[in-house]
Amino acid sequence: MQLGVIGLGRMGQIVVERVLDAGHDVVAFDLNSEAVTTAAEAGAETAEGPVDVLDRLGDERRVWLMVPAGEAVDATLDELAPHLRERDVVVDGGNSHFEASVRRAERVDAAYLDCGTSGGPAGAELGFSLMIGGPAWAYEEMTPVFDAVATGPEGHGHMGPAGSGHYVKMVHNGVEYALMQAYGEGFELLFEGRYDLDLESVARTWNNGAVIRSWLLELCEEAFREEGSDLGDVADHVAGGSTGTWTVQEALEQEVPVPLIYQALAERFASREERFSRRLANRLRYGFGRHEVARE
Amino acid sequence: MQLGVIGLGRMGQIVVERVLDAGHDVVAFDLNSEAVTTAAEAGAETAEGPVDVLDRLGDERRVWLMVPAGEAVDATLDELAPHLRERDVVVDGGNSHFEASVRRAERVDAAYLDCGTSGGPAGAELGFSLMIGGPAWAYEEMTPVFDAVATGPEGHGHMGPAGSGHYVKMVHNGVEYALMQAYGEGFELLFEGRYDLDLESVARTWNNGAVIRSWLLELCEEAFREEGSDLGDVADHVAGGSTGTWTVQEALEQEVPVPLIYQALAERFASREERFSRRLANRLRYGFGRHEVARE
Amino acid sequence: MQLGVIGLGRMGQIVVERVLDAGHDVVAFDLNSEAVTTAAEAGAETAEGPVDVLDRLGDERRVWLMVPAGEAVDATLDELAPHLRERDVVVDGGNSHFEASVRRAERVDAAYLDCGTSGGPAGAELGFSLMIGGPAWAYEEMTPVFDAVATGPEGHGHMGPAGSGHYVKMVHNGVEYALMQAYGEGFELLFEGRYDLDLESVARTWNNGAVIRSWLLELCEEAFREEGSDLGDVADHVAGGSTGTWTVQEALEQEVPVPLIYQALAERFASREERFSRRLANRLRYGFGRHEVARE
Amino acid sequence: MQLGVIGLGRMGQIVVERVLDAGHDVVAFDLNSEAVTTAAEAGAETAEGPVDVLDRLGDERRVWLMVPAGEAVDATLDELAPHLRERDVVVDGGNSHFEASVRRAERVDAAYLDCGTSGGPAGAELGFSLMIGGPAWAYEEMTPVFDAVATGPEGHGHMGPAGSGHYVKMVHNGVEYALMQAYGEGFELLFEGRYDLDLESVARTWNNGAVIRSWLLELCEEAFREEGSDLGDVADHVAGGSTGTWTVQEALEQEVPVPLIYQALAERFASREERFSRRLANRLRYGFGRHEVARE
Repeated sequence: MQLGVIGLGRMGQIVVERVLDAGHDVVAFDLNSEAVTTAAEAGAETAEGPVDVLDRLGDERRVWLMVPAGEAVDATLDELAPHLRERDVVVDGGNSHFEASVRRAERVDAAYLDCGTSGGPAGAELGFSLMIGGPAWAYEEMTPVFDAVATGPEGHGHMGPAGSGHYVKMVHNGVEYALMQAYGEGFELLFEGRYDLDLESVARTWNNGAVIRSWLLELCEEAFREEGSDLGDVADHVAGGSTGTWTVQEALEQEVPVPLIYQALAERFASREERFSRRLANRLRYGFGRHEVARE
Repeated sequence: MQLGVIGLGRMGQIVVERVLDAGHDVVAFDLNSEAVTTAAEAGAETAEGPVDVLDRLGDERRVWLMVPAGEAVDATLDELAPHLRERDVVVDGGNSHFEASVRRAERVDAAYLDCGTSGGPAGAELGFSLMIGGPAWAYEEMTPVFDAVATGPEGHGHMGPAGSGHYVKMVHNGVEYALMQAYGEGFELLFEGRYDLDLESVARTWNNGAVIRSWLLELCEEAFREEGSDLGDVADHVAGGSTGTWTVQEALEQEVPVPLIYQALAERFASREERFSRRLANRLRYGFGRHEVARE
Repeated sequence: MQLGVIGLGRMGQIVVERVLDAGHDVVAFDLNSEAVTTAAEAGAETAEGPVDVLDRLGDERRVWLMVPAGEAVDATLDELAPHLRERDVVVDGGNSHFEASVRRAERVDAAYLDCGTSGGPAGAELGFSLMIGGPAWAYEEMTPVFDAVATGPEGHGHMGPAGSGHYVKMVHNGVEYALMQAYGEGFELLFEGRYDLDLESVARTWNNGAVIRSWLLELCEEAFREEGSDLGDVADHVAGGSTGTWTVQEALEQEVPVPLIYQALAERFASREERFSRRLANRLRYGFGRHEVARE
Repeated sequence: MQLGVIGLGRMGQIVVERVLDAGHDVVAFDLNSEAVTTAAEAGAETAEGPVDVLDRLGDERRVWLMVPAGEAVDATLDELAPHLRERDVVVDGGNSHFEASVRRAERVDAAYLDCGTSGGPAGAELGFSLMIGGPAWAYEEMTPVFDAVATGPEGHGHMGPAGSGHYVKMVHNGVEYALMQAYGEGFELLFEGRYDLDLESVARTWNNGAVIRSWLLELCEEAFREEGSDLGDVADHVAGGSTGTWTVQEALEQEVPVPLIYQALAERFASREERFSRRLANRLRYGFGRHEVARE
């Protein structure tokens, strides 16, 4: 099978390599010529631009977009759209908002598959988890490619119609925030608590047989191994937050309570600046109780 | 009526003055001789120590303790206990834990009234809110004194048996934490949000007729007037927390969910140091996504 | 001064009456003819429709809209817009989203004041709290009317440019949710806790001098008086939620953590149906621990 | 090596079998004679009581207690204590509170190892995760047994001095509550949300390569397979809560904020009865806004 890949960043290169490894052919393009060279060295045919990718694919035109969510997806589709036909398949493997994917699916003549991709750089070896929305026939047709990019046949699933893949991925990320914070609270209590513990050893012991074992806990173990039980100079500052924000927004829309996901997101916001609310509480305690006001 | 007052800090002096103002007699003692002098200048008779307070009171021996919660209460009771008789009345007006009050009530021969006191320094003029537990007859007998110390007959109530006064006060304080944090969140959003607002003016407008008007909101208005809409150099550091901790502990025991009170308490803890949980989240994002780790 | 009032529901009638009581003239209209009759009986001149209101106002055309937020506001503006002139003033006293108010302010030729109104039915006697956004000159010109509708000069404020009035009102409501839930947690703990308490008496004692006294606490006192300490047949079901949802949405946008407001909103959602998350937890406890699954 | 096992419930039997499978000898006792028979059939020597277990062990007396946390542990120790010697080793493999373990370690003459055990019934095949506190020499000496009961050498660890094993297990369980609730929130949103999803398929896709893959997520997958995407008749009622309560209590003591763990615990409490706080909010909305009160 032939696959066009547009967008050759870290994730795009993994897609290229895993598809090639599975014995398929790849036509690759990126605005960055170094990235194109890397793909070529891996065995991909290279193209001059999005439309050239299409042109080089022959009759079965399947294109995987692995460009940053947002404008880059629309810009690429702007170029591709006039050339797309009904039997073509376009996969968006990025972190697009599900509503953008629904809109794009309606806009292009090709079958449009929104594909939530999870697993990070570790996916290079293990393969990813792929949550896919869009027309069932296109999902079926692409199965050999998904088998290659995912951890195998179990690592991808057809979630439902357009947008459902990115919808499930959005919720995945919301849960991810909460899991990270949950582990964080546990380790914070162990760190601040009564015993002087080796947190790498704790994480290792848990990862072997305990109810809370998980891949994120393996990453905790790795973090303590590399940074020490006190996390060294790692700062109290958590970046990111867009997919978590989307999850909470959708939960508000659906009137579904997600207090843990919300709180995990709020912790990220809180890590980025002083809390005005707490400064006011500090001051109010003087107001009603003449407690001394801490000042900077 | 005659009242002994032991403990002449800020709150104790207010008790002395309000009781004198109401036409009663006061016998006052404190370990600090300056505080005793202040009480004398206000018109109180002074005593040499706790037992001397009792001795000077004649037949109707009613003593109000306004000493710091904890050991100071027990130390004072240690002195008083051998001299107390069944018809004596001891009031603990401090922030004692309700279980300590139950224990003390059992220990002394006198009627023991645990009296939660709220209102802060502002109570000097307005009077306090008094939540009182213990024997009903003792509460009745003390009514003239409670009328004087409280805002009036409406400002005190007999909650129930021993411990119930401090129990209600404990819950009052838990609610207080949550109210402060709730206003804080609102003002934080207004401060960080889309408009450049005069927060004193917002608070004033709200205090005049809005659903959320309250005394704490009047203190917010005062804080913005005195510190500015940006709260000047007021630090992101909230001290205190014992009564809020007791409230959450009791709610755990009773299996009653109190997420807002808990969160308000947790904000105080969080204001006092870096969050290890967030430092771990920062590091984990590298683990699964190769996001750059912010370091100090 | 003359004021047109369009929308004569409970809140609109209060506006009519308070403005008449202050010695001004009112031209009133509502789609419901009974409501128009009520306003006429109170002393208002009546009109046939929105444009007729304008026509009857002479040179100084000031119109207060008190219609349901959303389509009703736009429908009324659709009728008024072609007739509005630069020096006219339109007030939207309803619970509109601030972004809708910004859009409407741009759309009409008149000065557009977005006016957050708080106080509920109790405002009939006391007057409301009015948070007002829009052109300063229009706010100044309307001051006599705002003095009448609000609790007085202290009860209204010019928050800033278009949208800021409804913005501040939105945040007010978010805080309101959290305050209600905070009191609710406290009373829940008292109700479920160790003592058999008269919650009306607790609320009354608190309302007289305690730090947490407030108008909402007076409403709690009233609720316990009317329903009993166990709240009788009042259901565990909280309706409403739109302004709280807006507050959380804006806080997400501004990346401001509002965990208490969020949690109070989530409690409303949670009161309306079974929690799937808890049903899953119930089942998972069997998965890892063979704990019996509770079934319906 | 020889091991005495006292307490032959589900978990105790697994200990017996895994230790026998590893080639060691077991002397087993339980108050329930059927359980003793089961252990005998598996190849264990049986004893008449706790002291008889000791007597049958010869010189190297190592006893594993797998009885319910609380009084049963103390009752067993009451019997054993007079017969224990300095070089004996007692392991408490149950869910004891760490402070009880510290107290017991001081009380007995033997080396006392507090051993947090995680993994549930699945541990029968895979082995458990064992978090162990107490004297290092005793931990070393017991290593062959721990290798057998745990998933292997990686599945157990010496956390630190007396109590540290149960301390780490306590925090493990707190994290477990939060993880379960985090997954629950995600699946609740997917269930209530915009798409009609097969949640078993979602869980399977996630378990193969996604960042949030874990053993608990495998249990979610199993639950959806067995109960359906709507969880059938599984009730909104979550039992249990003691170790989570301990975790929050310790976090209060240490002033460490654990909002996710707290919230997960609070959800359990909330699942068990109506929320008074929400009933009050329902009623208050009438108070300030004349919103209709939902009644039962």
